[in-house]
Formats: sequence, structure tokens, C-alpha cells
Amino acid sequence: MLEPIVWEEDRLSLIDQRKLPNKLEYFICKDYRDVAYAIKEMVVRGAPAIGIAAAYGMALAEINNENIEEAYKTLKNTRPTAVNLFWALNRCLKAYKEGKSIVEEAKRIQREEEEVCKRIGEIGEKIVDDGDTILTHCNAGALATSKYGTALSVIRFAHYSGKRIRVIADETRPRLQGAKLTAFELNYEGIPVKVIVDSSAGFLMQRGEINKVIVGADRILRDGTTYNKIGTYSLAILAKYHNIPFYVAAPLSTFDLESSEEDVKIEERDEREVAYIENIRIVPEGVSCINYAFDKTPAELITGIITEKGIIKPKEEEIIKLFKGIKWKSQ
Amino acid sequence: MLEPIVWEEDRLSLIDQRKLPNKLEYFICKDYRDVAYAIKEMVVRGAPAIGIAAAYGMALAEINNENIEEAYKTLKNTRPTAVNLFWALNRCLKAYKEGKSIVEEAKRIQREEEEVCKRIGEIGEKIVDDGDTILTHCNAGALATSKYGTALSVIRFAHYSGKRIRVIADETRPRLQGAKLTAFELNYEGIPVKVIVDSSAGFLMQRGEINKVIVGADRILRDGTTYNKIGTYSLAILAKYHNIPFYVAAPLSTFDLESSEEDVKIEERDEREVAYIENIRIVPEGVSCINYAFDKTPAELITGIITEKGIIKPKEEEIIKLFKGIKWKSQ
Repeated sequence: MLEPIVWEEDRLSLIDQRKLPNKLEYFICKDYRDVAYAIKEMVVRGAPAIGIAAAYGMALAEINNENIEEAYKTLKNTRPTAVNLFWALNRCLKAYKEGKSIVEEAKRIQREEEEVCKRIGEIGEKIVDDGDTILTHCNAGALATSKYGTALSVIRFAHYSGKRIRVIADETRPRLQGAKLTAFELNYEGIPVKVIVDSSAGFLMQRGEINKVIVGADRILRDGTTYNKIGTYSLAILAKYHNIPFYVAAPLSTFDLESSEEDVKIEERDEREVAYIENIRIVPEGVSCINYAFDKTPAELITGIITEKGIIKPKEEEIIKLFKGIKWKSQ
Repeated sequence: MLEPIVWEEDRLSLIDQRKLPNKLEYFICKDYRDVAYAIKEMVVRGAPAIGIAAAYGMALAEINNENIEEAYKTLKNTRPTAVNLFWALNRCLKAYKEGKSIVEEAKRIQREEEEVCKRIGEIGEKIVDDGDTILTHCNAGALATSKYGTALSVIRFAHYSGKRIRVIADETRPRLQGAKLTAFELNYEGIPVKVIVDSSAGFLMQRGEINKVIVGADRILRDGTTYNKIGTYSLAILAKYHNIPFYVAAPLSTFDLESSEEDVKIEERDEREVAYIENIRIVPEGVSCINYAFDKTPAELITGIITEKGIIKPKEEEIIKLFKGIKWKSQ
């Protein structure tokens, strides 16, 4: 299996996801600034992976004897929407303040998140039926975490258990994570996958060619409102219209029990991500683009949320129950 | 205004839409085979424009003393979904069988379609309110017709009448007609336009940033079922969900009163249209893509159809009434 985040000999190596699927190369981070750059420029992306990478960014600051609060602030300001980033940074800052090793805390976060992703797959695969065709959006896979993925962990474990499944991957404009990463990752493991343009999901549903939709998440509020890659909200509406189950797969580190919708900043990225593809301008000069990186899906469109502690309905009481006995603070 | 289809000195010049927005070049057709190539490869595209170009293809066969039935058959087999192609070819074949000039019939079709597009704009602009932001998909503009367009004719005439409107253009993967053509054409005339990735339409609707959706059509059946560029069906569902009016703008030549859904072939185009962008492969080797070029929107999702004879509800009795006194045969 792919290893997107490798900590070895006091340095961090990240699969450079900007170069996939054509090249499998690692991007080396020697200090926290390298990590901040890698997160901002999407060398590494996916909510859980960003969290783990940021934790190692803190670890590098510790090793290099740099100002930890500075490192914290710089890493925190890389991307605004995925909450795992803040969660991981806060764990590291807390460890530091308690006089513990940040390196050890970062390693612990990575190990835990890998275990969590595995559990999400083992638990979630029960919702998959033999013969299912599953639609997914963006990349909620090994490349978005440290191993297994979230949505793709569910798909992987369904496949491992012998169920004959097929995956349809939305290409996921503008950054094409579906075409480039999800297709790469599933094909790498021999799981049947085909790519579609984002706008054809509805038509495939109309034709009865989709049995389930499973996506990841960047942030889930206490009422189940889910932030995820732009296009997720449209898919949820389309799934509802066609009576197709729509699942979100995410670890507890993606939940944000404290924020309300008003607090969540939906990242707007550089419009050149839309205007250029592979350095070629596709939009006429002088015309601008709107480029929200995420959207917001209300709970009523979500069939269930698959977590490492079970599959729940997107309801406040069920979400609160998940966190019973767990101390959790995002920001 | 752009002139995408020019007949001069017995030859046909088509704006090469594959090269827009970066180059404005004409593709010259000297015989019907050139025209067939131009339609197949999408040098010219858009249901009404394909019809006009095909008519001139027949005219070229006449001028070059080639077999008219052969030309008819070759042109007919270029693309399967848009019905204007068959409508225009049949008009030319009928003229030929009646001993009339095909060249004159083709010119008549072009003149009529221009007049029709103008009427669609004049009639349709009434549904647009001052201050509206209108979402459109693909290119139903001058470049898809001979002048004015269908959906974009409505937008143009609203703009001409002094209403302050803004347009959001879906980029329209895989061929990017929204980003490349609609944005080009509106910007060329100074109508404010921004481009989005297809999957963000739902989110903009949720944010209250879209007041109306207006699209073109490739074929409309007698019950109002509408075939149009892939992604139209999803937009119609999203508009319904957000209570946003969803209009189709199309000339009578786009209606097909004879076919039922089973008769309509939805074109599947080469999967390389999805797998490559600007000759760069974005999907891993070994992974295939699904590439339906059109989808099917049921009448219940359509607020109204804007035609040159008025705005109607997508209901059989209203559609039949449109054709009262008109002899019409598509195939």
C-alpha cells in the first residue's frame, strides 16, 4: 500500500500529490516552513493527512530548536476549512506545554489515525453489498490519510472481504483529485474504477448505475453539517433525489463540536486553479473564476456517518454520544 | 457579433471552436466530407449550428456534383443526439427531390434560424429581472447557432434592454464549452461573466447567488423531455431543490415530435476527452472513463421552454399547439 507520510531520521517525506498519477515522488520537509508550504500548495491534502503532516511540522520545529508558538501559528494559517489540522496542532502544543516530546506525539497521532482508518473500513464495509457500484468524490483514500483512507477504506475493506464492487470516481475539478489520486490508488490495488466528469453523476444515477455514494469530510459539526470538497453538496442532493444512500466516512478528529456554521471559513482558492489546466489557460483573458474549495452539506441529506466508533445518524445526540469520555478540543 | 458560420463564394467557413478562446480561426470546408469532419470533431457544435453546417454540407455536394444521397447519409451519421441535424438534412433532401437548389435552401435555413434566435431572445428576455445572476451550462450562444444563440440570446436581449445582469458559466467538462466559448462570447460583448467548475453550481445556489438557470437543448420530445449537454439534468435537480426557475431555450427545429425516449441515442464520445486535457493525460494509464455527451431532463424539472413562438410549459398539449399549421418531420 502507498505510504504518503513517512517520518524517518528526523525528517518528513510526503508523496508529492501534485505529480501523481504520472510520477511517484517524495517531497522532503526539513523544517516546519517546508511543511506549511506543502500543506498550502497541496503537496499533501486530505483532512487527516494535513493533520498528521502538521504534527510533524511541529516535531521539526522541536528538533530544529525553533520557536514552537511561531511554528504553531504558521501551520495553523495554511488552510482554514479542515479541522483535523487544528486538532493535531493543538495536541502537539499541549504535549509541548506538558514537557513531552512533540516528535513522539506526532508519531502517536499518525499511528492512531492509521488504526482509526482501518476501523472505519472494517466497520463501514458492512454497508456495502456484493455487486455494488459506489460513487466517490475527490480523494478520501490512503493519500488523504496515512493509510487506508476514510471513504476508500470502506471500499478497500469491502473489496478485501470478497465483495465484487466497482467504483466510479468523480474527476473532481479543479484539482482533479478523483481522476489523479482516487483512480491511481484504487487501480494500484486492483479495485475496479472508472472516472467520470463531475457533472455526469446525476445521469448515471438516473440510469440506475450507482448504488451508494461514499465521501470523506473536512469538518463535521455537532449537528451533522458536513464540510467537504466542492461538489459534495450537489452529490448529496442528487443522491436524495434518486433515493441512493449517501454516506460520509470520517474519523473523530474531523468532528468540530464547538463551532457553528458561522465560524467555519470555506476556503476560496486562487482562481487560476480553475482558469488553467496543466499550465494552459482555458478561460479567456479578462474573465475571472469563482473557486470555493469546499461546500456544506446539511445533515438531512446524509444517510449515515461512518466513524471508528460505529456508524451513526447525523444527529446531535448520536454525535455527542460518540465523544463520551473523550476530551476533545479543536481550536 | 461573432459570425461562426459564413457561406461565401461557394465555400463554407466555420469558426474553429476547438481553438477558442486563444485563437479565432476559420476552418474551411470545400466538400461535404470536410463538413462531416467538422461536425464529428466539434469544429462546429451546438444543435442549431450543426443543422446549418450540415445543410451547407449538402449544398457543397450539390455544387461539387457529388452523390446527394451519399452526402446525406455521411452527414447524418456524424452525431446522433441533436435533432436539428436531421431536420436540416431532411429539408435539404426534400428541396433537392423537388428540383430546388440546395444552396438556396441552406441559406434559407441559416437566415430563418438567425431570425428565430433573435425572436427567442426578444421573447425570453421578459423572464429576466434587473439584477439577476443567471447560471448557464455549455454554450448555447452565437457559437452554437448562427447568431445570438438560444439561452445566450435571452441573456443578450436582457442585457441590450438595459437590465443589469451577471452570468455564471459552468465550465462544462469535458470539452469546456462554458469556460472556452460562453465566457469568450459574453466577455466579447461586455456582458459580465464568471466561470465556475461544474460541481460548484449547487453550492452557489445554496448561498442564494443564482436567480435563474437558462440552458439550450439538443432535442426536445413531445412530452417536454429535454436532451442537452451532460450536466444539464443535475442542474435541473439542483434548481428544483433550491426553488430556482429552470428554463430551456430552443427553436422549433430542436423539437422531435415523433421519437420516444427509447428512440433517442445518447452519444458516448471517446473516453480520451475525459482522460486527457490539452493533450496531457490526467487519468492513470489503465483506468478508463465513461463519457456520455448528453443527458435527459424530464419535463417536471423544467419551468418553461422559450421558443420563437412564445414561452410554454413543457407539456404535450402546449408543444403540439406550437406546431399547429407547421409541417415538420425530423428523420
